[in-house]
Amino acid sequence: MTKATAPPLGEFERIARFFAPLAGRGALNLTDDVALIDGPAGEQYALTTDTIIEGVDYFPDDPPFQVAQKLLRVNLSDIAAKGATPFGYLLTTALAKTQGDAWLEQFTQGLAADQKEFGVVLLGGDSSGTPGPATLTLALIGKVAKGRAVLRSTAQAGDQIYVSGTLGDSALGLAVRKGEIGAELSATERDYLVDRYRLPRPRAALGPRLAGIAHAMIDISDGLLSDLGHICAASRLHGVLHQPRLPLSPAARAAIAVNPRLNTAVTGGGDDYELLFTAPATAAEAIAQVSVAVGVPVTAIGVMEKGEGFALLDAAGHVVKVERKGYAHFS
Amino acid sequence: MTKATAPPLGEFERIARFFAPLAGRGALNLTDDVALIDGPAGEQYALTTDTIIEGVDYFPDDPPFQVAQKLLRVNLSDIAAKGATPFGYLLTTALAKTQGDAWLEQFTQGLAADQKEFGVVLLGGDSSGTPGPATLTLALIGKVAKGRAVLRSTAQAGDQIYVSGTLGDSALGLAVRKGEIGAELSATERDYLVDRYRLPRPRAALGPRLAGIAHAMIDISDGLLSDLGHICAASRLHGVLHQPRLPLSPAARAAIAVNPRLNTAVTGGGDDYELLFTAPATAAEAIAQVSVAVGVPVTAIGVMEKGEGFALLDAAGHVVKVERKGYAHFS
Repeated sequence: MTKATAPPLGEFERIARFFAPLAGRGALNLTDDVALIDGPAGEQYALTTDTIIEGVDYFPDDPPFQVAQKLLRVNLSDIAAKGATPFGYLLTTALAKTQGDAWLEQFTQGLAADQKEFGVVLLGGDSSGTPGPATLTLALIGKVAKGRAVLRSTAQAGDQIYVSGTLGDSALGLAVRKGEIGAELSATERDYLVDRYRLPRPRAALGPRLAGIAHAMIDISDGLLSDLGHICAASRLHGVLHQPRLPLSPAARAAIAVNPRLNTAVTGGGDDYELLFTAPATAAEAIAQVSVAVGVPVTAIGVMEKGEGFALLDAAGHVVKVERKGYAHFS
Repeated sequence: MTKATAPPLGEFERIARFFAPLAGRGALNLTDDVALIDGPAGEQYALTTDTIIEGVDYFPDDPPFQVAQKLLRVNLSDIAAKGATPFGYLLTTALAKTQGDAWLEQFTQGLAADQKEFGVVLLGGDSSGTPGPATLTLALIGKVAKGRAVLRSTAQAGDQIYVSGTLGDSALGLAVRKGEIGAELSATERDYLVDRYRLPRPRAALGPRLAGIAHAMIDISDGLLSDLGHICAASRLHGVLHQPRLPLSPAARAAIAVNPRLNTAVTGGGDDYELLFTAPATAAEAIAQVSVAVGVPVTAIGVMEKGEGFALLDAAGHVVKVERKGYAHFS
């Protein structure tokens, strides 16, 4: 029994200690983005679930249309990161009893828009009243050919490390939304960053195209270094990233030019919902073709080596000391 | 757009208006206990999800071991009601950041005990911190032979109506727990009722044995009449129940003897987690055998007829007027 005076364990320690012993076949030891269970002939289902909470993961006055999209998209990102294609979901809503129908109507309109965009349908769910903040949980199911899911644990030494899109926009957008930064940015730059915070762009077209090409993959939700750390730990390898190669949007570049300490948003801000993956050097051409085909930039940012943990190198090849602020879980 | 001054719609109206248009194949129009999707050869997966909230569905000082069991069992009951066999689940926990590890340890011990009892495993999940009450969501997956799931919509005129176990214990147990009733009961009777409130007994062995025998089935969570109403509406039939036949525990009988108004707990209290099903008169012998085999009493309480809605008849065959108190949704 834990002593009452001991501080609570962190999320990953709690999973390892209390939940991992409960995990069954298909749970991937609770150390990957999804669970995998047998589907119809030749297929597997990939299962994932995420919760977003009013006042924690979104602002109470965020448009309900976008809250719905965020809820669906954070889950779509997990499915994409395994190379799977989403098809249906269960939704549970715990809402204040006073929550009006207008909010719910706009929320479901957001779901409808994203169902069309991403090809998914509602399968079932549960509605509750809560005296607390709105708590929205979605369990998403995807399909992937048996054995083709791209796990965290299968990176190989010598693999290149790639990332889709740009890094840090969401964390910077949250800081703008809170009024912490942004005075030196243009209105267009501020709007761009806040929009990237409010509305994840899951790489749903890119992920499945990388099945059979990528060795290991994860979506960036905890932050670049933290999520690279998950691949390194699961694959028992060492990851090396080159800071100058990290892809930044013009708005992020402008914000960091004014305040270089905001670089922590790039390496650890989280909620990027980009795909971080490793692939052999021989796959470079195939990856470039996929990138063009789906219209999502992909950038090579480092390499996997024998060893453990990871390092971020500057232009001179020196290790960059990274502040922990912005990501709680760091190996 | 709903006018801001209009009262919010009820749960079922919200589902019909906002969520049903989002439902895809397998969702059974969101009017059954589960969704059904294709599984491995010859099988289907039945999917269900339920949320329980601290201070709403359980008391903050309820033993965490039993809270875990309740969360798992309310979902097990839905799977049993389709004649399916459960095998795995996703769990999302939103807990106060100050929630100690001791609580979580006992909670996961409760899960472990029920995993063993019911043959299910943890597949994955999500953990969040919340500033509100603990909000626990579980999505459970069961298996059933293709086409054998027992739906709400397939009752036939002339079917007998059956119910497992006893009715009203949970609602009476909640009233005892709140101190509203119980002074005239023995300590043993009070403990029995409170235990039935705290710890559902999903009919996980009975449900699958009724696949191929029962025409329609539901688990009683909203209350006997409300859930019979769901079968009647889905099957477009009229249900007739005979009040003197409704099975009561000795403790419930004692409570109602003192205060006959507590009969509403039997017909509408909810959270019974018994199975309510219809079957042809020719199945009586098979049902009796299954009841004995699994050790769960089953009682014939009425009949399905042509028409719509339902009626409760007293010993003289007169319609009993039922108070709506205790169940919000009543057809």
